[in-house]
Amino acid sequence: MSYQQLHQHFLKISHFNHLSAICDWDQAAMMPAGGNDARSAAMAELSVLIHQLTTAPQLAEWIAVAETETLTADEKVSLAALKRRWRQANLLPEELVLAQSLANSTCEHAWREQRKNNDWDGFKPNLAKVVELAREEARVRAADSGLSRYDAMLELYEPDMNCAKLDALFGEVKTWLPEFIQRADANQANKNLLTPTGPFSIAQQKDLGLAAMELLGFDFEHGRLDVSNHPFCGGVPSDVRITTRYDESDFMKALLGVIHETGHARYEQNLPLAWAGLPVGEARSTGIHESQSLFFEMQLARSPEFTQLLAPLAQRLLDRAQDPAFTVDNLYAFNTRIKRGYIRVDADELTYPAHVILRYEIERALIEGEIEVDDIPALWNEKMQAYLGLSTEGNYRDGCMQDIHWALGLFGYFPSYTLGAIYAAQEFAAATRAIEQLPAKIAAGELGELFQWLHDNIWSKASLLSTDELMIAATGEPLNARYFKAHLERRYFSVK
Amino acid sequence: MSYQQLHQHFLKISHFNHLSAICDWDQAAMMPAGGNDARSAAMAELSVLIHQLTTAPQLAEWIAVAETETLTADEKVSLAALKRRWRQANLLPEELVLAQSLANSTCEHAWREQRKNNDWDGFKPNLAKVVELAREEARVRAADSGLSRYDAMLELYEPDMNCAKLDALFGEVKTWLPEFIQRADANQANKNLLTPTGPFSIAQQKDLGLAAMELLGFDFEHGRLDVSNHPFCGGVPSDVRITTRYDESDFMKALLGVIHETGHARYEQNLPLAWAGLPVGEARSTGIHESQSLFFEMQLARSPEFTQLLAPLAQRLLDRAQDPAFTVDNLYAFNTRIKRGYIRVDADELTYPAHVILRYEIERALIEGEIEVDDIPALWNEKMQAYLGLSTEGNYRDGCMQDIHWALGLFGYFPSYTLGAIYAAQEFAAATRAIEQLPAKIAAGELGELFQWLHDNIWSKASLLSTDELMIAATGEPLNARYFKAHLERRYFSVK
Repeated sequence: MSYQQLHQHFLKISHFNHLSAICDWDQAAMMPAGGNDARSAAMAELSVLIHQLTTAPQLAEWIAVAETETLTADEKVSLAALKRRWRQANLLPEELVLAQSLANSTCEHAWREQRKNNDWDGFKPNLAKVVELAREEARVRAADSGLSRYDAMLELYEPDMNCAKLDALFGEVKTWLPEFIQRADANQANKNLLTPTGPFSIAQQKDLGLAAMELLGFDFEHGRLDVSNHPFCGGVPSDVRITTRYDESDFMKALLGVIHETGHARYEQNLPLAWAGLPVGEARSTGIHESQSLFFEMQLARSPEFTQLLAPLAQRLLDRAQDPAFTVDNLYAFNTRIKRGYIRVDADELTYPAHVILRYEIERALIEGEIEVDDIPALWNEKMQAYLGLSTEGNYRDGCMQDIHWALGLFGYFPSYTLGAIYAAQEFAAATRAIEQLPAKIAAGELGELFQWLHDNIWSKASLLSTDELMIAATGEPLNARYFKAHLERRYFSVK
Repeated sequence: MSYQQLHQHFLKISHFNHLSAICDWDQAAMMPAGGNDARSAAMAELSVLIHQLTTAPQLAEWIAVAETETLTADEKVSLAALKRRWRQANLLPEELVLAQSLANSTCEHAWREQRKNNDWDGFKPNLAKVVELAREEARVRAADSGLSRYDAMLELYEPDMNCAKLDALFGEVKTWLPEFIQRADANQANKNLLTPTGPFSIAQQKDLGLAAMELLGFDFEHGRLDVSNHPFCGGVPSDVRITTRYDESDFMKALLGVIHETGHARYEQNLPLAWAGLPVGEARSTGIHESQSLFFEMQLARSPEFTQLLAPLAQRLLDRAQDPAFTVDNLYAFNTRIKRGYIRVDADELTYPAHVILRYEIERALIEGEIEVDDIPALWNEKMQAYLGLSTEGNYRDGCMQDIHWALGLFGYFPSYTLGAIYAAQEFAAATRAIEQLPAKIAAGELGELFQWLHDNIWSKASLLSTDELMIAATGEPLNARYFKAHLERRYFSVK
């Protein structure tokens, strides 16, 4: 049976992806600097192999024949997912892939220094080349899929999502977000807040992170925690590798980072074994993945109830039982502090969507050819003024040059961050309706039903449902921003 | 040019071997237990790929054509090494490889429990199957190479070595070794010796190990130290991963283990970059590799001069400045203590060769068909009595069932351990002749010239010379046991 041949072939690819994921983790978390050149050459060889396997000539025929075979409903979904992966891999002409690889790595490499030097003029021509090739990629993908150019890029990360839906969703958020930010800012200005002061030893912070992972059900038989410069969740579902970075003056950064990655990790660890190694067995999308990390970090960990668990843990493991900054109330205030700022990765829950919507609006126009690279700084400044009341005029370093994404040719990825936050709020609201007395249970450390809800509704579904189907099955309605708005209102404007 | 095609092809293989080595290390040192099944499947896929590449059909023609091309002298040696690798990989019929894989893993898996239970009767039929297939392998290899069956197996690990040479070498050692052991045993019975008593914290032991690696020139830009159940030296020359295992009651075990692996590591780290990825660029043999670890551990680290460096380091990093067990004299006595025992891996420098010669004599006769599996226990007991004065009658666990090698189908490997010790003594004697005042320099921590000697004479040569050529170039004469005997006499019988 051709479907079985495809199945075996994709399992083979997944074995090589497994080794690639472990070696990627090693490169970020373990490898000494001098190992980099030989490692990069070895990894490039593996990438070529995986690309060859994904574009093997026999796949076209196997897929065509499999589509005529009698398959179960799930197998049909699996075949469609597998075909989608195959089309995406086969679509781009090799010259374009090579040209992009060169332009992106040139741009990203130079950007590291240019950003430090606020050197927009140096960055501009490199980015223009990257954009030109990304537009060409979008054109090829759009011609194949019948989607608009930006939609065709978005589809790589967030299938079933498109600009029309995003405009509606983000448009609604924009009607209240700037006012929310101003109001929260004003509210908090009058509040007393103690900042926990370090130093906090790395050994103690690590123990605290591990204790939080334990509390959150991380399966240490199938994963581990390590250190890397840029925290991530990697590895494979049977062996999930999460990383963090410790700052001795601020324990909360690593702790919430670990909790965030634990959300990603539990999704991976609980994907269905029956579909392991196949595209349909993977996480639904980058947005749904982010919804799990934000469910853990934003919905759960920063809640007043969970803070009742976190505060005594931090007091005990950091030796701060007597420290007034470590009370439940103060840590809750600390973790819901709002601060308008220039930098997306440092942004809080409330201002983060503004950073994302701004980038979405600019990158969409760029890819659709409505604006040029030259137009970016002025647009960036204008939107920062409108959404956050901050000027980035002449400040490229903390403005349009702050992220690595565009330098690397990643267009269509940014929306996932805020989609994740909106998905997460809607999921958490559904779980709250489904589980009796959920807030009290969280405060008591009884998290089993909540994890079971996530397991049943999100994790075990992998990519067997479309995103809309997934959200309707889990929450009773398609994605919408009402729950996100209600969550922010409750957290930032309810009288406590 | 065909030689260039071969070069490229073997570089490609080395890239996959690189990833395999890193994932092997990960599996031993990092991977949580639950990751094992998926990892093993992924690694098996990679093994199949590497085997396919090593046996690719076009190689036969490329090699034939390359042999007619105009090559430099070094390229000719490289081509021969590459051809040898190719022949070894292509020689065995696939059915035999599969049957061995099954029989060996069945035998080894059952052995883990059977050894604990002293269950020779259970082990015997499994081992008989392993031996039957190993004999078949030896027959195929012997037919191809024109060597005797055991020589053909030995050649896999120690090219240029054969039974005739080994019999001469080990035969000579046997003329004085049993008497040396008895005499040293008697000498030491009267000596006072303080055993350093723990607990020694793992953190302190790790710092001590790292300090020793630093002293011994380990390049931390191209390698690291971690923990695994069975210590080893893995990774790749640009990124060497050594491991150890800590015992809180005995710091010396991990320390000397780390020094041993550092010897392996420096060989790997200093292999010539120009030949990286090619067979000719690899270490000469398992025996020469072992000579580097034993050069570091036995010749250097247990010497009275090096103990003058090690003692203050241990005193400082383990907080034992006032401990009488940590004087130079006592630590030297501790590290040169002799103890006749049943277990090879626990054996000291003086008794170790007896364990190896015994195994060599038995496995050689087994492979040549002169004895059967049934004969092993009696032979083992007889030789243990003769060489070490110990009986293993009825004690299979601590006798012929103690090692994993035969259960895994590894025949021809054991001689490498003692060959390594003999090579190392001859190398150290040559270095002592070449470097003025070497003992004083060692005691003063001036190790640069010694490492330069190893670099110039061993490490940088990789497999460019035959083992005989290597030893003659480095020491002025072919391998012989005189220096090993002189070393043991000096260390164990000179009046101090």
